[in-house]
Formats: sequence, structure tokens, C-alpha cells
Amino acid sequence: MHQPIPEYDPQELYREAEAFVRQCYTELEKESAIEPRLETIRREIAESGHYDHTFEELEHGARMAWRNSNRCVGRLFWQSLEVLDRRDCETPAEVHEACCEHLDRARNGGDIVPTISIFEPMIRGRQRVRIWNYQLLRYAGYAGGDDSDVVTGDGDRTRAENPDEIVGDPAEVPMTRYCQSRGWEGDGGRFDILPHVIQVGDDEPELFEVPDSVIEEVELSHPEYDWFADLDLRWYDVPVVSNMRLEVGGIQYTAAPFNGWYLATEIGARNFADTDRYDMLPEIADRLGLDTDDDRSLWKDEAVVELNRAVLHSYDEAGVQIVDHHTVTDQFAQFERNEEAAGRDVTGDWSWLIPPVSPATTQVFHTTYDDEIRTPNFFYLEPPAAIRE
Amino acid sequence: MHQPIPEYDPQELYREAEAFVRQCYTELEKESAIEPRLETIRREIAESGHYDHTFEELEHGARMAWRNSNRCVGRLFWQSLEVLDRRDCETPAEVHEACCEHLDRARNGGDIVPTISIFEPMIRGRQRVRIWNYQLLRYAGYAGGDDSDVVTGDGDRTRAENPDEIVGDPAEVPMTRYCQSRGWEGDGGRFDILPHVIQVGDDEPELFEVPDSVIEEVELSHPEYDWFADLDLRWYDVPVVSNMRLEVGGIQYTAAPFNGWYLATEIGARNFADTDRYDMLPEIADRLGLDTDDDRSLWKDEAVVELNRAVLHSYDEAGVQIVDHHTVTDQFAQFERNEEAAGRDVTGDWSWLIPPVSPATTQVFHTTYDDEIRTPNFFYLEPPAAIRE
Repeated sequence: MHQPIPEYDPQELYREAEAFVRQCYTELEKESAIEPRLETIRREIAESGHYDHTFEELEHGARMAWRNSNRCVGRLFWQSLEVLDRRDCETPAEVHEACCEHLDRARNGGDIVPTISIFEPMIRGRQRVRIWNYQLLRYAGYAGGDDSDVVTGDGDRTRAENPDEIVGDPAEVPMTRYCQSRGWEGDGGRFDILPHVIQVGDDEPELFEVPDSVIEEVELSHPEYDWFADLDLRWYDVPVVSNMRLEVGGIQYTAAPFNGWYLATEIGARNFADTDRYDMLPEIADRLGLDTDDDRSLWKDEAVVELNRAVLHSYDEAGVQIVDHHTVTDQFAQFERNEEAAGRDVTGDWSWLIPPVSPATTQVFHTTYDDEIRTPNFFYLEPPAAIRE
Repeated sequence: MHQPIPEYDPQELYREAEAFVRQCYTELEKESAIEPRLETIRREIAESGHYDHTFEELEHGARMAWRNSNRCVGRLFWQSLEVLDRRDCETPAEVHEACCEHLDRARNGGDIVPTISIFEPMIRGRQRVRIWNYQLLRYAGYAGGDDSDVVTGDGDRTRAENPDEIVGDPAEVPMTRYCQSRGWEGDGGRFDILPHVIQVGDDEPELFEVPDSVIEEVELSHPEYDWFADLDLRWYDVPVVSNMRLEVGGIQYTAAPFNGWYLATEIGARNFADTDRYDMLPEIADRLGLDTDDDRSLWKDEAVVELNRAVLHSYDEAGVQIVDHHTVTDQFAQFERNEEAAGRDVTGDWSWLIPPVSPATTQVFHTTYDDEIRTPNFFYLEPPAAIRE
């Protein structure tokens, strides 16, 4: 799952830098700048063991990373990624402030702008900035069994956890516990936004409550079923992934939160549907009058479609950009045609590209992809030990 | 797609035989028989370049092949596979007769019996029996453009094919054309069963009309929507796959048709739903009153669920065994537990194990599988040139 961060090695760093610079400047049609730039980088690495990207390299490198993201079906718009250079942020508070500005600018009043904020990278193998959150907006998960640790016979501590006993998002129970251990309380609700947890260097991370002014949410309703609103479901508007490192030319940006707009199935077929998340399908099926005692009635399948219709309808009503899984796979086919025209072949991870609803009705299901990993790219970071499950 | 048939090599044949015999007899708890049996096989190969399986080896080998079928989600019942030894069939007519008996016995009045009929294998690298059909029951596809070959500028012949212009199953257009070229006419309908096309040795294949007495079909209706029956859809009751070779202990059985019972999504989410098959979703969505001009209405998703409900309902009404995708994935989890208890690890091809409807609601979606290919196993045969698309 997690690609380990490559060991720091100045010679390897130069090799990676060279490969990146040659490709980047060629794509930007600035071939004549390649050799002088490589000379500068060579000198910089020799003197300091590190080199800094120009803004142009950072911008195009981040866009290439999106283009190379094998699991992302929304890559058609890679060239429009808005790159915010935040390498000047030094303190956790400054990083948090920049994250809040990211939310505001990416949101753009509902007309969401794919955006990345890039903080100071690792330097000579030392991590500078790390955001512990999975996304910049994310709901807490309060486990009912928090006071009921079970010590098993061989002394291991296990926790008797049951999604039924969790209030909020079960995926965020470890993070919520950590925040509580640091004094954060939360309101104990189903949709409490977690604080930003930001670490600089080896210091203990600092927690920052996310101000209401940068939180926007969509309340869910259904185009036909009035009772749907009574479920009191909501979701935040923009998914800003903050737990991946961006690797460009051998430089590791361990804090580089990025967003596109939502694909409706992420909310409707996973966050609210998975049995180890909000697990809403049984209640929705009950309300639809389906026979939930018999899987053969296909109640899960009917319920998940209605839930996804509700998500699309609600975001539309709220004026927040969101894409459905049919449109996004058509867009992916366009991305494939564009890349072919540019003389590049598309790599992809089929298991992530297919949607979790009716995948066989989309063309990606009927296509095979080479899952070769290229750089620049985004890689999962291992979660800090304190929030590891 | 097609694993080429291994080159004939007596030494390699013995190595494969030995590996199989050791595993087979160990699983059958007949370890003491291993060495004498290997001695016999060694002598047989030395004398004739071939060896014959005992019925017990054939039976357990075929069951192991099912157990090793990474793409099959129905493997829980591998031990119940009924093995019919048909190695005595010499002529195409005898093979066809055995196929008809297979259909009858596997059907079993609706209480379907997983069954395999095993014909004479390749001997010293020479193919003996080959069934050209994809399945023993399969519908013809008549391409309207059959008289309208287009010669393009560079002299290539292409055929202007449009699923709209095809009557029947578009997947069977090449096979149907071949049968027509051999004098078969067909009724030109949507559900005409193709003749069996059976080849022995290097002779020209012979065609055999499948008698009505071994054809059973289910007419589709919906538990709620009366209009569904007006679509006049039907499907055959038992899928007998006949285009794969069975490989056991280095012996290649190029004709070994086998069946389980249907998984409803095969019919409801692929055969009738795929745009290059019967492509029924637009008409079903229209009848449901959905907005088919806008993919965002999720009309495909609603229609495919109703189609799958109709398939399950119709097979139930007809008393023909069929499984839904939730039950079969639960059964697969039981298979995984059984295999673990037996000290074997399960290999699998995730992309085939997940269902094409609401995959994320099933546990296989959330599991990873090792796709290592083990023998005994089933492998696709390259289609004969005359029916290659």
C-alpha cells in the first residue's frame, strides 16, 4: 500500500532530477534550457545535497504527477491543476492557514478548481512538513467502545469495535482518538470536522480547529423521495487529499494536499454505503420498502442507486460541482485519446478506474491498462504510529 | 488472453504428471499409491510418449482445475463436480451425442449439477477433439451487413457492423457466419440455438443441430413490471463452456465442456446489458420512464438492477437454479475459509471475481487476491481461424 520513501542519496537525486528536467522542459518546449538548468542543479546538489525546483518545474511536475496517477479516473483535466507554492510556510500555524486558503480557493463558490498546495519538501532526507489528516475536511468517528479495551490472553490489547457503536465516520476512529488524546473534544456528532494536525520537523504535531468560514457542506435530499432528507445526511463539498507525498525529480514533498471535484460514487457508493463506513444502505432500503432479509431481492443494489441519485441531485441543487461515473469514464476515454495524440501511453489501475456502481456499463470496464508506476507521481505515506490502526 | 498450449515434450510431460500425481494422491489420502503409479506412468511415457489418466485422476484433476480457476467466483462447490469420462467417443457424432447427454444430465430438471464431459486429449502433441462452440447452448447472431463488405482505400476489407443491425447475439456473428458458410441456415431470430461444430483430428468440423429435447430456456418477466414480458427476452438454462482446454498432469484435454449454474449478473448485467451484446438497457430504461438523454439520471444503473431482478425472478419461477451476486460472493468467502482450513491458499483474479453490479457491496471488492496460475486448470483455446473476428 505504502511505497516507502526512497533512501536519500545525492547521486540518485541528481539522476532523478535529470530525468525529470529533460521530460519537463521537452514537454514545455524549452529544450534549450535543459543543459544550463542541469548544470545549476548539479552544482546545487554538490554544494548542499539538495536542489530547489523553480515554480515552473513545480507546476508542471505536479501536473505530470496527476497525469501519472494510475488510480485516478479524473485525469482529463491534469493541465488545469492550480499549483500553489507554499514552500515558504515555516510553522504549523502557517501551514494550517495555507490549508484554509486552499479550501477557499479550491471551493471557488462551488465551481471547484483542481488545486494543489505544495509545502517545503524533505531536505537531505529529513522530513520538514507533514499533515496527519487524510483529507483537509473529514468527519470524526467516535467509537463507543473507547473505554472498553479488551486485554486478551496473550496480553494484546484489542478493541471490540462495531460500526453500530461508532458515531461519525468509522474510518476516522484512530485519528479522532489521537485528537482526543491531545485535548480536542469534538461535539460527538456524526459530522464533526476533525482539526488539522500538522507537524513540522520532529516536533509534536499541533492541532488547529478548522474555522467554519472554510467549511461548506451539502445536505442530502432525493429528487423524488422526500423522506431522504430526514436521514439527515450531509457531506463536505471538496475532497482535499492530504496524506500522500508528491515526488518530482527525486524531491519528496511530504505535504502537498490536492483536490479535484467529487465523483458521486465516492460519497454514494463508498462513504455512505460501505458497511465499515456510514453503512446507510439498510436504512435506505427499509425506507424504500425493500426486503432487506433477502439479498436476492437486490435491495443493496436498488438502495445504492437511489443514494447516488440523491448525491448528484443534492450537489447540483447546492451548486457544487460533482461528476457522475458515466460522464467521468467518458472523460477518461477522452484523456486516453489526448495522451495518444501527444505520443504518450496511459498507465492505469483498472481496479480503481472502474466505478463501484454498474461498472460494466462504462468503457473502462472493457479496457485493460498497464499499471506501471511512473514519476512524477503521488504515493501514500505510512500513517504516523499514533494514528495507525 | 489465450495461454498457448505447451509444446509437446515427453520429459516435461513426466514432470507435470509427477507433480500432479503427488498432489492428487496426497489430497485423496492415498500416498502409498504414489510411487507405483509414477513407475507405471514413467514406463507408459517411455513406451508411447503418452499416458492415460485413471478415472480417479481424471475426476480429482478436473475438480482441482475448477478449484484453481482464478476467475470463477463459484468455486465453493468444486468437490461436487460430476465428471463424465467420454474418452471413448471417436466420431464427431459421438461427441455431439455426449454433449447432448451432458446438457440433459447437467440440467437435471432445473436442479443443476456442475458437470464436465472429458473427451480424448491431445496425444503426442496431436489434437484429437475440438468443439468450436463457445458454449453448448448459444444464440446465433445474424449481421445485417453481411452483404455489405466495405473495401477501404488501402484495400482492407472492413465490415460496417452496428449492433443495431445484428439480430441475435452480436458475440456469435463470426460463428454464425461460419455455420452459414457450411450450409446451416437458422431461422433469423434473436434466440436461435447454434449447431454444435465438432472437429476430430484435422478433419473438417461437422455440424449438428441441437435437438429441441436438450434445449431449455427461461422466458424473462419481472416481479412487478408486467411490460417486461413484452420485451420477449429469454435465455437458456445452463451455461456449458466448451472453448477451454483442461490441463491435468501435462495432458491437454482440448474438449472438456463444463458447467455450473448461472450467476444472474452474467445474463442481466452482461449478455443483455453490454452495448456490444443484446444492449437492452435503453429500452428497459425507456419503459421505466427514465431520462435516457442524461447519463446523470443514472438510468443505466436503475435499468440494470431491474433487469437483474427480472432474471432472478424468472429463473426462480421456472424452477431453474441460479445464484445472485451477493450470495455467490458470500459462498466465495466460505470457499476461502475452507481452503485455509485445508492448508491451501486461494488464488484469484479480482477483476473477474467482483460482480458487474454494485461490486463494492460485496466482500471480494474489499479483498486482494494473488492471481498466480496453478495447474490443473482451464485455459482458453485460440479460436479456429475460420471463426476468429
